[in-house]
Amino acid sequence: MTNEQWLDIFKEIGKKMRDGITATLNKEGGTVPLGKGAGGDKTFPVDKWAEDIIISALEGAHREGEAFTLISEELGVRKFGQGNKIVLADPIDGSNNAKSGIPFFSTSLALLNSDTLDTLAVGYVINLAAGDEFWALRGNGAYKNGERIRTSAVEGIAIVSYEASSPKSDLPRLLPLLAQAKRTRCFGSTALDLAYLASGAMGVFATATASRAFDYAAGMLILVEAGGVITDLTGGSLDHVVVGLERTAPLLASKNKATHVMAMNILLRNQDNKSPRIDM
Amino acid sequence: MTNEQWLDIFKEIGKKMRDGITATLNKEGGTVPLGKGAGGDKTFPVDKWAEDIIISALEGAHREGEAFTLISEELGVRKFGQGNKIVLADPIDGSNNAKSGIPFFSTSLALLNSDTLDTLAVGYVINLAAGDEFWALRGNGAYKNGERIRTSAVEGIAIVSYEASSPKSDLPRLLPLLAQAKRTRCFGSTALDLAYLASGAMGVFATATASRAFDYAAGMLILVEAGGVITDLTGGSLDHVVVGLERTAPLLASKNKATHVMAMNILLRNQDNKSPRIDM
Repeated sequence: MTNEQWLDIFKEIGKKMRDGITATLNKEGGTVPLGKGAGGDKTFPVDKWAEDIIISALEGAHREGEAFTLISEELGVRKFGQGNKIVLADPIDGSNNAKSGIPFFSTSLALLNSDTLDTLAVGYVINLAAGDEFWALRGNGAYKNGERIRTSAVEGIAIVSYEASSPKSDLPRLLPLLAQAKRTRCFGSTALDLAYLASGAMGVFATATASRAFDYAAGMLILVEAGGVITDLTGGSLDHVVVGLERTAPLLASKNKATHVMAMNILLRNQDNKSPRIDM
Repeated sequence: MTNEQWLDIFKEIGKKMRDGITATLNKEGGTVPLGKGAGGDKTFPVDKWAEDIIISALEGAHREGEAFTLISEELGVRKFGQGNKIVLADPIDGSNNAKSGIPFFSTSLALLNSDTLDTLAVGYVINLAAGDEFWALRGNGAYKNGERIRTSAVEGIAIVSYEASSPKSDLPRLLPLLAQAKRTRCFGSTALDLAYLASGAMGVFATATASRAFDYAAGMLILVEAGGVITDLTGGSLDHVVVGLERTAPLLASKNKATHVMAMNILLRNQDNKSPRIDM
């Protein structure tokens, strides 16, 4: 299958998610956990429902002759024949929001030609609450709801969003950067942070706890194709990250290179201080 | 008019907003500022459009014999005859999100019987992106999309959301509380923070910069009617706050009293330390 055909599969999955998400979340018992997923987070009925939609679509692709491996937040790793391609899936990115009734969560899907991030070929993120649909094919730009998106070329960190899965240790590390922002945001869905950064809504996105590839791979391609930059928190390339269920690296993502350097310098200047300095 | 009739007017306003918001935001030039509103924030075409809907509905109420004063983020104060009642309006709460394409912003409307917050009679908040509609009539409970909502009775700060209009000074003040959270959130719409707190999605909401009454009055009544607590950041009552265009007090809002005391103690313990302590 071509990358365009893969994107069509991802869009079909997104459509099914959007059509069924409200009824699924409102179902009796929909917020009682079922256990823990392969990624270590609690699995809720909505996560299971979402993953079933993904698996059903991928089984269809496999029946048509595609061989690939799925790595997903809930079930872990599943092989669909012998092939190099990898599909990374986070069925519901922002589960905490979804199960508590906050309309800000997404499905994130990426296709890679091998097991390293430099072979990212397709990225797809859909905001399941508001409907915004983002995608990118490598080398062909990034799109939001069918329209080409580009990050802002203006230098400056402006609005900084972040994700902190351990606020006690993460926030002091991110504070120097957050303190320089015009506004901060913390929405609770890494895929959407990267997608809205790609569409020009923010200046910088950062995490201090290492993220897992299925959380950020799709958003990463969308961001890069929109003109943005993403590295680990110290500026290291993510190209050779081997995708799996493990947490890989904390992230720093920016709307453009100049802003990225600025954000990195703010963070590096402060990394040896145990108490955050806010007097810069 | 009865409070129920006022609520119907607010719901009509909400419906018009929801029906027209997407087209208004997508209009050419929709994100070029028109000037500054009475509240000091930049006014965008979407703010003006939203305020016009509110004024048109209020003119209808005035023609039917109601006398009241409107205090609104954009136009400031306008009298509709001589009367004690006050309508507080934030046409678009979360303008930064709205104009940058992030689907998280709201309209906030409150009715008071006089100029102090202890006379709050009706509160109405609508999430213009996702559609969630919250309201409360004093003494009659709080509702989300027509269903009664209640905050959680469990003690513990859990998820803490905040608003920081000056991150450099606000974040160090809030950091002790944020560091104790399981997760932090910063969505960028105070009215929605209070409304989702009321519906059980969060444990605590805090601001370090003083908020303006039209930002929080509607959400305040919804929260209190759902079982929550709201004071200034040091625990002082907001009952005698005189509503106007000025910033009044920084806010601390919690799902229940025990959690409120816990959050306040965390903040008070740290208020004399210029550098935030994160080793509690």
